Amino acid sequence: MEVVQTKGQIIKGKPVADQISENLIKEVNELVKEGINPKLTIIRVGARGDDLAYERGALKRCENIGITTEVLELAEDIAQEQYIETLKKVNEDKDVHGILCFRPLPKQLNEESIKYVISPEKDVDCFSPVNAAKVMEGDQSGFPPCTPTAVVEILKHYGVELKGAKVTVLGRSMVVGKPAAMLLLNEHATVTICHSRTKDLANVTSEADILVAAVGRAKMVKENFVKEGAVVVDVGINVDEEGKLCGDVDTDDVLDKVSMITPVPAGVGSVTTSILAKHVVKAYKLQNNK
Amino acid sequence: MEVVQTKGQIIKGKPVADQISENLIKEVNELVKEGINPKLTIIRVGARGDDLAYERGALKRCENIGITTEVLELAEDIAQEQYIETLKKVNEDKDVHGILCFRPLPKQLNEESIKYVISPEKDVDCFSPVNAAKVMEGDQSGFPPCTPTAVVEILKHYGVELKGAKVTVLGRSMVVGKPAAMLLLNEHATVTICHSRTKDLANVTSEADILVAAVGRAKMVKENFVKEGAVVVDVGINVDEEGKLCGDVDTDDVLDKVSMITPVPAGVGSVTTSILAKHVVKAYKLQNNK
Repeated sequence: MEVVQTKGQIIKGKPVADQISENLIKEVNELVKEGINPKLTIIRVGARGDDLAYERGALKRCENIGITTEVLELAEDIAQEQYIETLKKVNEDKDVHGILCFRPLPKQLNEESIKYVISPEKDVDCFSPVNAAKVMEGDQSGFPPCTPTAVVEILKHYGVELKGAKVTVLGRSMVVGKPAAMLLLNEHATVTICHSRTKDLANVTSEADILVAAVGRAKMVKENFVKEGAVVVDVGINVDEEGKLCGDVDTDDVLDKVSMITPVPAGVGSVTTSILAKHVVKAYKLQNNK
Repeated sequence: MEVVQTKGQIIKGKPVADQISENLIKEVNELVKEGINPKLTIIRVGARGDDLAYERGALKRCENIGITTEVLELAEDIAQEQYIETLKKVNEDKDVHGILCFRPLPKQLNEESIKYVISPEKDVDCFSPVNAAKVMEGDQSGFPPCTPTAVVEILKHYGVELKGAKVTVLGRSMVVGKPAAMLLLNEHATVTICHSRTKDLANVTSEADILVAAVGRAKMVKENFVKEGAVVVDVGINVDEEGKLCGDVDTDDVLDKVSMITPVPAGVGSVTTSILAKHVVKAYKLQNNK
Protein backbone atom coordinates (compact mmCIF):
# COMPACT_ATOMS: atom_id res chain seq x y z
CA MET A 1 0.00 0.00 0.00
CA GLU A 2 1.27 3.37 -0.93
CA VAL A 3 1.19 6.02 1.73
CA VAL A 4 0.16 9.39 0.40
CA GLN A 5 1.69 12.24 2.33
CA THR A 6 -0.74 15.04 2.98
CA LYS A 7 0.91 18.37 3.46
CA GLY A 8 -0.07 20.42 6.44
CA GLN A 9 -2.37 23.37 6.00
CA ILE A 10 -0.80 26.82 6.19
CA ILE A 11 -3.13 28.89 8.35
CA LYS A 12 -2.72 32.56 7.66
CA GLY A 13 -3.40 35.42 10.00
CA LYS A 14 -5.29 37.62 7.54
CA PRO A 15 -8.67 35.85 7.67
CA VAL A 16 -8.53 36.00 11.46
CA ALA A 17 -7.61 39.69 11.46
CA ASP A 18 -10.30 40.45 8.86
CA GLN A 19 -12.94 38.72 10.94
CA ILE A 20 -11.96 40.65 14.07
CA SER A 21 -11.85 43.93 12.11
CA GLU A 22 -15.26 43.31 10.60
CA ASN A 23 -16.81 42.85 14.02
CA LEU A 24 -15.02 45.90 15.37
CA ILE A 25 -16.14 48.13 12.49
CA LYS A 26 -19.77 47.40 13.33
CA GLU A 27 -19.16 47.99 17.01
CA VAL A 28 -17.27 51.26 16.49
CA ASN A 29 -19.96 52.50 14.09
CA GLU A 30 -22.49 52.14 16.87
CA LEU A 31 -20.22 53.87 19.37
CA VAL A 32 -19.46 56.77 17.05
CA LYS A 33 -23.19 57.42 16.67
CA GLU A 34 -23.22 58.17 20.38
CA GLY A 35 -20.71 60.95 19.86
CA ILE A 36 -17.24 59.80 20.90
CA ASN A 37 -14.54 58.02 18.93
CA PRO A 38 -12.43 55.37 20.59
CA LYS A 39 -8.88 56.68 20.54
CA LEU A 40 -5.43 55.06 20.78
CA THR A 41 -2.31 57.01 21.72
CA ILE A 42 1.05 55.48 20.87
CA ILE A 43 4.09 56.68 22.80
CA ARG A 44 7.27 56.07 20.86
CA VAL A 45 10.80 57.02 21.89
CA GLY A 46 13.09 57.69 18.94
CA ALA A 47 12.47 55.95 15.61
CA ARG A 48 13.46 52.28 15.78
CA GLY A 49 12.72 50.34 12.62
CA ASP A 50 10.60 47.64 14.28
CA ASP A 51 8.56 50.22 16.23
CA LEU A 52 7.90 52.13 13.01
CA ALA A 53 6.89 48.99 11.13
CA TYR A 54 4.45 47.96 13.87
CA GLU A 55 3.17 51.52 14.14
CA ARG A 56 2.34 51.71 10.43
CA GLY A 57 0.34 48.49 10.69
CA ALA A 58 -1.42 49.60 13.86
CA LEU A 59 -2.37 53.03 12.51
CA LYS A 60 -3.71 51.56 9.28
CA ARG A 61 -5.72 48.93 11.15
CA CYS A 62 -7.20 51.46 13.58
CA GLU A 63 -8.02 53.95 10.80
CA ASN A 64 -9.80 51.17 8.95
CA ILE A 65 -11.91 50.36 11.97
CA GLY A 66 -12.72 53.95 12.86
CA ILE A 67 -10.43 54.31 15.86
CA THR A 68 -8.78 57.71 16.19
CA THR A 69 -5.01 57.52 16.62
CA GLU A 70 -2.24 59.78 17.80
CA VAL A 71 1.51 59.17 17.96
CA LEU A 72 3.65 60.95 20.52
CA GLU A 73 7.22 60.75 19.29
CA LEU A 74 9.67 61.53 22.07
CA ALA A 75 13.35 62.34 21.73
CA GLU A 76 15.64 59.33 21.97
CA ASP A 77 17.43 60.86 24.95
CA ILE A 78 14.27 61.84 26.84
CA ALA A 79 14.66 61.88 30.63
CA GLN A 80 12.65 59.67 32.98
CA GLU A 81 10.65 62.57 34.46
CA GLN A 82 9.63 63.85 31.03
CA TYR A 83 8.54 60.40 29.86
CA ILE A 84 6.47 59.95 33.02
CA GLU A 85 4.98 63.43 32.64
CA THR A 86 3.90 62.61 29.08
CA LEU A 87 2.44 59.27 30.16
CA LYS A 88 0.52 60.87 33.03
CA LYS A 89 -0.98 63.48 30.72
CA VAL A 90 -2.27 60.75 28.41
CA ASN A 91 -3.50 58.75 31.42
CA GLU A 92 -5.60 61.75 32.43
CA ASP A 93 -6.80 62.70 28.95
CA LYS A 94 -10.43 61.57 28.82
CA ASP A 95 -10.39 61.50 25.03
CA VAL A 96 -7.73 58.78 25.04
CA HIS A 97 -8.97 55.25 25.75
CA GLY A 98 -5.96 53.09 24.91
CA ILE A 99 -2.22 53.69 25.37
CA LEU A 100 0.56 51.71 23.71
CA CYS A 101 4.09 52.37 24.98
CA PHE A 102 6.69 50.94 22.63
CA ARG A 103 9.22 48.81 24.48
CA PRO A 104 11.95 48.09 25.23
CA LEU A 105 12.54 51.66 26.37
CA PRO A 106 16.02 53.16 25.95
CA LYS A 107 18.49 52.60 28.78
CA GLN A 108 18.11 55.95 30.54
CA LEU A 109 14.44 55.12 31.21
CA ASN A 110 13.54 52.78 34.06
CA GLU A 111 10.87 50.48 32.68
CA GLU A 112 10.48 48.82 36.08
CA SER A 113 9.14 52.02 37.59
CA ILE A 114 7.37 53.40 34.49
CA LYS A 115 5.19 50.31 34.20
CA TYR A 116 3.49 51.28 37.45
CA VAL A 117 2.56 54.68 36.00
CA ILE A 118 0.45 53.64 32.99
CA SER A 119 -3.24 53.53 33.83
CA PRO A 120 -4.23 49.83 33.88
CA GLU A 121 -7.60 50.74 32.31
CA LYS A 122 -5.86 52.20 29.25
CA ASP A 123 -2.98 49.74 29.09
CA VAL A 124 -3.94 47.84 25.92
CA ASP A 125 -0.73 45.75 25.64
CA CYS A 126 -0.12 44.58 29.23
CA PHE A 127 2.63 46.93 30.34
CA SER A 128 1.09 47.40 33.81
CA PRO A 129 1.65 44.74 36.51
CA VAL A 130 -2.08 44.98 37.23
CA ASN A 131 -2.77 43.50 33.81
CA ALA A 132 0.01 40.92 34.16
CA ALA A 133 -1.59 39.76 37.42
CA LYS A 134 -4.99 39.55 35.70
CA VAL A 135 -3.51 37.35 32.98
CA MET A 136 -2.21 35.00 35.65
CA GLU A 137 -5.51 35.08 37.56
CA GLY A 138 -7.50 34.43 34.39
CA ASP A 139 -9.38 37.66 35.08
CA GLN A 140 -10.88 38.63 31.74
CA SER A 141 -11.43 42.26 32.71
CA GLY A 142 -7.79 43.09 31.97
CA PHE A 143 -5.64 43.38 28.87
CA PRO A 144 -3.32 40.49 28.12
CA PRO A 145 -0.46 41.26 25.73
CA CYS A 146 -1.57 41.39 22.08
CA THR A 147 0.73 38.71 20.65
CA PRO A 148 -0.26 35.75 22.88
CA THR A 149 -3.89 36.84 22.59
CA ALA A 150 -3.46 36.64 18.80
CA VAL A 151 -2.15 33.08 19.23
CA VAL A 152 -5.33 32.04 21.04
CA GLU A 153 -7.56 33.85 18.52
CA ILE A 154 -5.90 32.09 15.57
CA LEU A 155 -6.35 28.69 17.16
CA LYS A 156 -10.01 29.41 17.90
CA HIS A 157 -10.64 30.82 14.43
CA TYR A 158 -9.35 27.65 12.78
CA GLY A 159 -11.47 25.47 15.05
CA VAL A 160 -8.62 23.93 17.04
CA GLU A 161 -9.98 22.34 20.23
CA LEU A 162 -8.16 23.81 23.23
CA LYS A 163 -10.07 22.19 26.07
CA GLY A 164 -8.07 19.22 27.28
CA ALA A 165 -5.47 19.65 24.52
CA LYS A 166 -1.81 19.09 25.31
CA VAL A 167 -0.20 22.42 24.55
CA THR A 168 3.51 23.09 24.74
CA VAL A 169 4.79 26.64 24.80
CA LEU A 170 8.42 26.97 23.80
CA GLY A 171 9.76 30.13 25.44
CA ARG A 172 9.10 31.79 28.78
CA SER A 173 9.19 35.53 28.11
CA MET A 174 6.74 37.94 29.73
CA VAL A 175 5.77 39.18 26.27
CA VAL A 176 4.74 35.84 24.80
CA GLY A 177 5.63 32.55 26.51
CA LYS A 178 4.30 32.97 30.04
CA PRO A 179 1.12 34.90 29.15
CA ALA A 180 0.41 32.46 26.29
CA ALA A 181 0.67 29.61 28.79
CA MET A 182 -1.74 31.37 31.17
CA LEU A 183 -4.27 32.22 28.43
CA LEU A 184 -4.23 28.65 27.12
CA LEU A 185 -4.55 27.29 30.66
CA ASN A 186 -7.61 29.47 30.99
CA GLU A 187 -9.03 27.72 27.90
CA HIS A 188 -8.60 24.47 29.86
CA ALA A 189 -5.60 23.18 27.94
CA THR A 190 -2.92 21.14 29.72
CA VAL A 191 0.07 23.41 29.34
CA THR A 192 3.80 22.67 29.39
CA ILE A 193 6.36 25.47 29.34
CA CYS A 194 9.73 24.63 27.77
CA HIS A 195 12.83 26.76 27.43
CA SER A 196 16.56 26.78 26.83
CA ARG A 197 17.25 24.64 29.91
CA THR A 198 14.72 21.95 29.01
CA LYS A 199 16.32 18.52 28.64
CA ASP A 200 15.53 16.46 25.51
CA LEU A 201 13.61 19.39 24.12
CA ALA A 202 12.47 17.62 20.95
CA ASN A 203 11.10 14.76 23.05
CA VAL A 204 9.01 17.14 25.12
CA THR A 205 7.70 19.29 22.27
CA SER A 206 6.87 16.27 20.12
CA GLU A 207 4.25 15.18 22.64
CA ALA A 208 2.18 18.30 22.10
CA ASP A 209 -1.11 18.46 20.22
CA ILE A 210 -0.45 22.18 19.85
CA LEU A 211 3.02 23.70 19.81
CA VAL A 212 3.52 27.43 20.30
CA ALA A 213 7.05 28.43 19.34
CA ALA A 214 8.24 31.70 20.85
CA VAL A 215 11.97 31.52 21.47
CA GLY A 216 13.34 33.85 18.83
CA ARG A 217 15.76 31.37 17.23
CA ALA A 218 15.54 31.06 13.47
CA LYS A 219 14.16 27.72 12.25
CA MET A 220 15.15 25.82 15.38
CA VAL A 221 11.98 23.71 15.44
CA LYS A 222 12.63 20.81 13.04
CA GLU A 223 10.57 17.79 12.00
CA ASN A 224 11.61 15.77 15.08
CA PHE A 225 10.22 18.51 17.40
CA VAL A 226 6.62 17.99 16.27
CA LYS A 227 4.07 15.24 16.68
CA GLU A 228 2.36 13.79 13.62
CA GLY A 229 -0.75 15.90 13.03
CA ALA A 230 0.17 18.62 15.52
CA VAL A 231 -0.95 22.24 15.16
CA VAL A 232 1.99 24.64 15.19
CA VAL A 233 1.82 28.36 15.93
CA ASP A 234 5.04 30.12 15.03
CA VAL A 235 5.46 33.37 16.95
CA GLY A 236 9.14 33.94 16.12
CA ILE A 237 10.22 36.71 13.78
CA ASN A 238 13.84 36.18 12.79
CA VAL A 239 16.11 36.70 9.82
CA ASP A 240 17.66 33.60 8.27
CA GLU A 241 21.12 33.20 6.74
CA GLU A 242 19.93 34.53 3.42
CA GLY A 243 18.57 37.64 5.08
CA LYS A 244 14.95 36.53 4.67
CA LEU A 245 12.28 36.81 7.35
CA CYS A 246 11.58 33.49 9.05
CA GLY A 247 10.01 32.08 12.20
CA ASP A 248 11.23 29.80 14.98
CA VAL A 249 9.98 26.83 12.98
CA ASP A 250 11.64 25.31 9.93
CA THR A 251 8.36 25.27 8.03
CA ASP A 252 9.60 23.26 5.04
CA ASP A 253 10.95 20.60 7.37
CA VAL A 254 7.77 20.14 9.43
CA LEU A 255 5.08 20.84 6.83
CA ASP A 256 4.47 17.23 5.83
CA LYS A 257 4.10 16.15 9.43
CA VAL A 258 1.85 18.80 10.98
CA SER A 259 -1.85 19.33 10.39
CA MET A 260 -1.75 23.14 10.49
CA ILE A 261 0.97 25.75 10.82
CA THR A 262 1.00 29.53 10.85
CA PRO A 263 3.43 31.10 8.36
CA VAL A 264 6.06 33.79 9.01
CA PRO A 265 5.44 36.45 7.78
CA ALA A 266 1.64 36.63 7.37
CA GLY A 267 0.85 34.58 10.48
CA VAL A 268 0.57 35.68 14.11
CA GLY A 269 2.08 39.10 13.37
CA SER A 270 -0.79 40.08 11.12
CA VAL A 271 -3.37 39.38 13.84
CA THR A 272 -1.63 41.37 16.57
CA THR A 273 -2.78 44.83 15.44
CA SER A 274 -6.40 43.72 15.26
CA ILE A 275 -6.13 42.52 18.86
CA LEU A 276 -4.68 45.92 19.71
CA ALA A 277 -7.70 47.57 18.08
CA LYS A 278 -10.03 45.18 19.92
CA HIS A 279 -8.41 46.15 23.21
CA VAL A 280 -8.85 49.88 22.45
CA VAL A 281 -12.57 49.33 21.88
CA LYS A 282 -12.79 47.21 25.05
CA ALA A 283 -10.99 49.97 26.99
CA TYR A 284 -13.38 52.56 25.56
CA LYS A 285 -16.36 50.49 26.67
CA LEU A 286 -14.98 49.86 30.16
CA GLN A 287 -14.26 53.57 30.62
CA ASN A 288 -17.75 54.49 29.47
CA ASN A 289 -19.61 51.68 31.24
CA LYS A 290 -20.87 50.23 27.95
CA MET B 1 16.66 -12.87 40.94
CA GLU B 2 14.58 -11.44 43.66
CA VAL B 3 13.64 -7.81 43.33
CA VAL B 4 13.84 -5.99 46.63
CA GLN B 5 11.37 -3.15 46.87
CA THR B 6 12.83 -0.05 48.43
CA LYS B 7 10.26 2.13 50.06
CA GLY B 8 10.29 5.79 49.23
CA GLN B 9 11.70 8.24 51.74
CA ILE B 10 9.19 10.34 53.66
CA ILE B 11 10.59 13.86 53.64
CA LYS B 12 9.21 15.89 56.51
CA GLY B 13 8.78 19.62 56.68
CA LYS B 14 10.21 20.10 60.17
CA PRO B 15 13.92 19.90 59.30
CA VAL B 16 13.33 22.45 56.52
CA ALA B 17 11.41 24.77 58.83
CA ASP B 18 14.02 24.38 61.57
CA GLN B 19 16.82 25.29 59.18
CA ILE B 20 14.98 28.39 57.99
CA SER B 21 14.14 29.39 61.58
CA GLU B 22 17.74 28.94 62.71
CA ASN B 23 18.98 31.30 60.00
CA LEU B 24 16.24 33.81 60.78
CA ILE B 25 16.97 33.81 64.50
CA LYS B 26 20.56 34.89 63.80
CA GLU B 27 19.40 37.52 61.37
CA VAL B 28 16.73 38.95 63.67
CA ASN B 29 19.20 39.02 66.58
CA GLU B 30 21.41 41.32 64.53
CA LEU B 31 18.48 43.52 63.53
CA VAL B 32 17.17 43.82 67.07
CA LYS B 33 20.58 45.09 68.20
CA GLU B 34 19.99 48.05 65.91
CA GLY B 35 16.86 48.96 67.81
CA ILE B 36 13.78 47.82 65.89
CA ASN B 37 11.93 44.52 65.92
CA PRO B 38 10.48 43.12 62.72
CA LYS B 39 6.72 43.00 63.22
CA LEU B 40 3.90 41.04 61.62
CA THR B 41 0.26 42.12 61.83
CA ILE B 42 -2.40 39.54 61.10
CA ILE B 43 -5.85 40.79 60.09
CA ARG B 44 -8.49 38.18 60.80
CA VAL B 45 -12.25 38.50 60.26
CA GLY B 46 -14.29 36.38 62.64
CA ALA B 47 -12.86 33.17 64.09
CA ARG B 48 -12.75 30.42 61.46
CA GLY B 49 -11.14 27.23 62.63
CA ASP B 50 -8.53 27.02 59.89
CA ASP B 51 -7.55 30.67 60.32
CA LEU B 52 -7.10 30.12 64.06
CA ALA B 53 -5.04 26.97 63.54
CA TYR B 54 -2.74 28.73 61.08
CA GLU B 55 -2.57 31.77 63.34
CA ARG B 56 -1.42 29.73 66.33
CA GLY B 57 1.37 28.20 64.26
CA ALA B 58 2.38 31.55 62.79
CA LEU B 59 2.45 33.34 66.14
CA LYS B 60 4.50 30.59 67.76
CA ARG B 61 6.97 30.53 64.87
CA CYS B 62 7.40 34.32 64.86
CA GLU B 63 7.77 34.49 68.66
CA ASN B 64 10.46 31.85 68.44
CA ILE B 65 12.37 33.84 65.87
CA GLY B 66 12.02 37.18 67.64
CA ILE B 67 9.41 38.73 65.36
CA THR B 68 6.82 40.86 67.15
CA THR B 69 3.24 39.93 66.29
CA GLU B 70 -0.17 41.51 66.56
CA VAL B 71 -3.58 40.11 65.62
CA LEU B 72 -6.42 42.43 64.64
CA GLU B 73 -9.63 40.46 65.03
CA LEU B 74 -12.48 42.11 63.16
CA ALA B 75 -16.17 41.40 63.54
CA GLU B 76 -17.53 38.79 61.15
CA ASP B 77 -19.99 41.32 59.72
CA ILE B 78 -17.46 44.13 59.27
CA ALA B 79 -18.23 46.51 56.41
CA GLN B 80 -15.97 47.07 53.42
CA GLU B 81 -15.04 50.63 54.43
CA GLN B 82 -14.07 49.58 57.94
CA TYR B 83 -11.92 46.72 56.70
CA ILE B 84 -10.16 49.05 54.26
CA GLU B 85 -9.70 51.67 56.97
CA THR B 86 -8.05 49.08 59.22
CA LEU B 87 -5.82 47.86 56.41
CA LYS B 88 -4.76 51.40 55.50
CA LYS B 89 -3.83 52.15 59.11
CA VAL B 90 -1.59 49.09 59.20
CA ASN B 91 -0.15 50.01 55.79
CA GLU B 92 0.88 53.37 57.22
CA ASP B 93 2.12 52.12 60.57
CA LYS B 94 5.92 52.28 60.34
CA ASP B 95 6.30 49.75 63.14
CA VAL B 96 4.56 47.08 61.09
CA HIS B 97 6.65 45.41 58.37
CA GLY B 98 4.52 42.49 57.29
CA ILE B 99 0.74 42.14 56.91
CA LEU B 100 -1.16 38.87 56.58
CA CYS B 101 -4.86 39.16 55.65
CA PHE B 102 -6.67 35.89 56.21
CA ARG B 103 -8.67 34.85 53.14
CA PRO B 104 -11.14 34.07 51.81
CA LEU B 105 -12.85 37.14 53.21
CA PRO B 106 -16.54 36.93 54.12
CA LYS B 107 -19.03 37.68 51.36
CA GLN B 108 -19.82 41.28 52.24
CA LEU B 109 -16.17 42.19 51.60
CA ASN B 110 -14.97 42.65 48.04
CA GLU B 111 -11.61 40.89 47.89
CA GLU B 112 -11.12 42.05 44.29
CA SER B 113 -10.92 45.66 45.37
CA ILE B 114 -9.30 45.13 48.79
CA LYS B 115 -6.31 43.38 47.25
CA TYR B 116 -5.31 46.67 45.62
CA VAL B 117 -5.24 48.39 49.03
CA ILE B 118 -2.63 46.31 50.85
CA SER B 119 0.83 47.84 50.55
CA PRO B 120 2.82 45.54 48.23
CA GLU B 121 5.94 46.13 50.36
CA LYS B 122 4.21 44.66 53.42
CA ASP B 123 2.19 42.00 51.62
CA VAL B 124 3.98 38.87 52.86
CA ASP B 125 1.58 36.31 51.38
CA CYS B 126 0.93 37.64 47.86
CA PHE B 127 -2.48 39.24 48.24
CA SER B 128 -1.53 42.27 46.12
CA PRO B 129 -1.60 41.99 42.29
CA VAL B 130 1.81 43.70 42.32
CA ASN B 131 3.26 40.63 44.00
CA ALA B 132 1.32 38.25 41.75
CA ALA B 133 2.83 39.99 38.72
CA LYS B 134 6.30 39.72 40.25
CA VAL B 135 5.83 35.97 40.70
CA MET B 136 4.98 35.68 37.02
CA GLU B 137 7.87 37.92 35.99
CA GLY B 138 10.31 35.98 38.18
CA ASP B 139 11.08 39.24 39.97
CA GLN B 140 12.61 38.17 43.27
CA SER B 141 11.98 41.51 44.97
CA GLY B 142 8.36 40.57 45.67
CA PHE B 143 6.57 38.14 47.96
CA PRO B 144 5.26 34.95 46.38
CA PRO B 145 2.58 33.11 48.35
CA CYS B 146 4.00 31.15 51.29
CA THR B 147 2.74 27.68 50.37
CA PRO B 148 4.29 27.33 46.88
CA THR B 149 7.46 28.95 48.22
CA ALA B 150 7.51 26.22 50.87
CA VAL B 151 7.25 23.61 48.10
CA VAL B 152 10.38 24.98 46.42
CA GLU B 153 12.26 25.25 49.73
CA ILE B 154 11.50 21.63 50.63
CA LEU B 155 12.74 20.39 47.25
CA LYS B 156 15.93 22.43 47.57
CA HIS B 157 16.49 21.34 51.18
CA TYR B 158 16.37 17.66 50.21
CA GLY B 159 18.75 18.22 47.32
CA VAL B 160 16.28 17.60 44.51
CA GLU B 161 17.68 18.96 41.24
CA LEU B 162 15.20 21.42 39.73
CA LYS B 163 17.18 22.69 36.75
CA GLY B 164 15.99 20.82 33.69
CA ALA B 165 13.70 18.58 35.75
CA LYS B 166 10.29 17.65 34.40
CA VAL B 167 7.87 19.04 36.95
CA THR B 168 4.13 18.57 36.84
CA VAL B 169 1.89 20.73 38.97
CA LEU B 170 -1.54 19.28 39.55
CA GLY B 171 -3.91 22.18 40.21
CA ARG B 172 -4.12 25.72 38.85
CA SER B 173 -5.20 27.89 41.77
CA MET B 174 -3.75 31.34 42.40
CA VAL B 175 -2.80 30.24 45.92
CA VAL B 176 -0.70 27.22 44.96
CA GLY B 177 -0.80 25.77 41.42
CA LYS B 178 -0.02 28.73 39.19
CA PRO B 179 2.53 30.42 41.47
CA ALA B 180 4.23 27.05 42.12
CA ALA B 181 4.53 26.60 38.34
CA MET B 182 6.05 30.07 37.98
CA LEU B 183 8.50 29.61 40.86
CA LEU B 184 9.64 26.25 39.52
CA LEU B 185 9.96 27.68 36.01
CA ASN B 186 12.19 30.30 37.53
CA GLU B 187 14.37 27.47 38.85
CA HIS B 188 14.69 26.33 35.22
CA ALA B 189 12.42 23.31 35.49
CA THR B 190 10.27 22.27 32.54
CA VAL B 191 6.80 22.77 33.97
CA THR B 192 3.47 21.21 33.05
CA ILE B 193 0.23 22.42 34.63
CA CYS B 194 -2.56 19.84 34.88
CA HIS B 195 -6.08 20.22 36.18
CA SER B 196 -9.58 18.76 36.25
CA ARG B 197 -9.96 19.08 32.46
CA THR B 198 -6.68 17.32 31.67
CA LYS B 199 -7.17 14.22 29.53
CA ASP B 200 -5.49 10.97 30.62
CA LEU B 201 -4.35 12.67 33.79
CA ALA B 202 -2.41 9.68 35.14
CA ASN B 203 -0.50 9.43 31.85
CA VAL B 204 0.56 13.05 32.08
CA THR B 205 1.50 13.08 35.76
CA SER B 206 3.40 9.79 35.51
CA GLU B 207 5.93 11.42 33.19
CA ALA B 208 7.06 13.86 35.86
CA ASP B 209 10.35 13.68 37.74
CA ILE B 210 8.69 15.88 40.36
CA LEU B 211 4.96 15.93 41.00
CA VAL B 212 3.36 18.72 43.00
CA ALA B 213 -0.19 17.79 43.98
CA ALA B 214 -2.43 20.74 44.84
CA VAL B 215 -5.99 19.94 43.86
CA GLY B 216 -7.69 19.46 47.20
CA ARG B 217 -9.09 15.99 46.52
CA ALA B 218 -8.38 13.39 49.17
CA LYS B 219 -5.97 10.64 48.07
CA MET B 220 -6.71 11.04 44.36
CA VAL B 221 -3.08 10.51 43.30
CA LYS B 222 -2.59 6.75 43.14
CA GLU B 223 0.33 4.52 42.19
CA ASN B 224 -0.41 4.82 38.44
CA PHE B 225 -0.12 8.63 38.64
CA VAL B 226 3.58 8.58 39.54
CA LYS B 227 6.75 7.64 37.73
CA GLU B 228 9.12 5.11 39.28
CA GLY B 229 11.54 7.12 41.41
CA ALA B 230 9.60 10.39 41.22
CA VAL B 231 9.66 13.01 43.97
CA VAL B 232 6.17 13.87 45.19
CA VAL B 233 5.19 17.02 47.08
CA ASP B 234 1.71 16.75 48.54
CA VAL B 235 0.17 20.17 49.16
CA GLY B 236 -3.39 18.97 49.78
CA ILE B 237 -4.98 19.09 53.21
CA ASN B 238 -8.16 17.04 53.20
CA VAL B 239 -10.14 14.84 55.51
CA ASP B 240 -10.55 11.18 54.51
CA GLU B 241 -13.58 8.94 55.01
CA GLU B 242 -12.44 8.04 58.50
CA GLY B 243 -12.22 11.70 59.43
CA LYS B 244 -8.42 11.68 59.40
CA LEU B 245 -6.27 14.40 57.86
CA CYS B 246 -4.83 13.36 54.50
CA GLY B 247 -3.29 14.85 51.39
CA ASP B 248 -4.09 14.72 47.67
CA VAL B 249 -1.82 11.69 47.40
CA ASP B 250 -2.63 8.15 48.51
CA THR B 251 0.70 7.84 50.27
CA ASP B 252 0.44 4.12 51.07
CA ASP B 253 -0.33 3.37 47.44
CA VAL B 254 2.60 5.31 45.95
CA LEU B 255 5.24 4.88 48.65
CA ASP B 256 6.98 1.87 47.11
CA LYS B 257 7.26 3.57 43.75
CA VAL B 258 8.45 7.08 44.56
CA SER B 259 11.90 8.11 45.76
CA MET B 260 10.67 10.82 48.14
CA ILE B 261 7.32 12.10 49.30
CA THR B 262 6.18 14.77 51.74
CA PRO B 263 3.69 13.55 54.37
CA VAL B 264 0.35 15.11 55.33
CA PRO B 265 0.30 16.36 58.03
CA ALA B 266 3.93 17.32 58.89
CA GLY B 267 4.90 18.12 55.31
CA VAL B 268 4.47 21.34 53.33
CA GLY B 269 2.13 22.83 55.93
CA SER B 270 4.82 22.86 58.59
CA VAL B 271 7.18 24.89 56.39
CA THR B 272 4.66 27.58 55.44
CA THR B 273 4.88 29.59 58.66
CA SER B 274 8.67 29.72 58.47
CA ILE B 275 8.37 31.15 54.95
CA LEU B 276 5.92 33.69 56.38
CA ALA B 277 8.50 34.65 59.02
CA LYS B 278 11.21 34.84 56.33
CA HIS B 279 9.02 37.20 54.31
CA VAL B 280 8.46 39.45 57.36
CA VAL B 281 12.21 39.74 57.84
CA LYS B 282 12.69 40.39 54.11
CA ALA B 283 9.98 43.08 54.24
CA TYR B 284 11.66 44.65 57.26
CA LYS B 285 14.98 44.77 55.42
CA LEU B 286 13.47 46.21 52.23
CA GLN B 287 11.68 48.92 54.21
CA ASN B 288 14.84 49.82 56.06
CA ASN B 289 17.24 49.51 53.11
CA LYS B 290 19.22 46.73 54.79
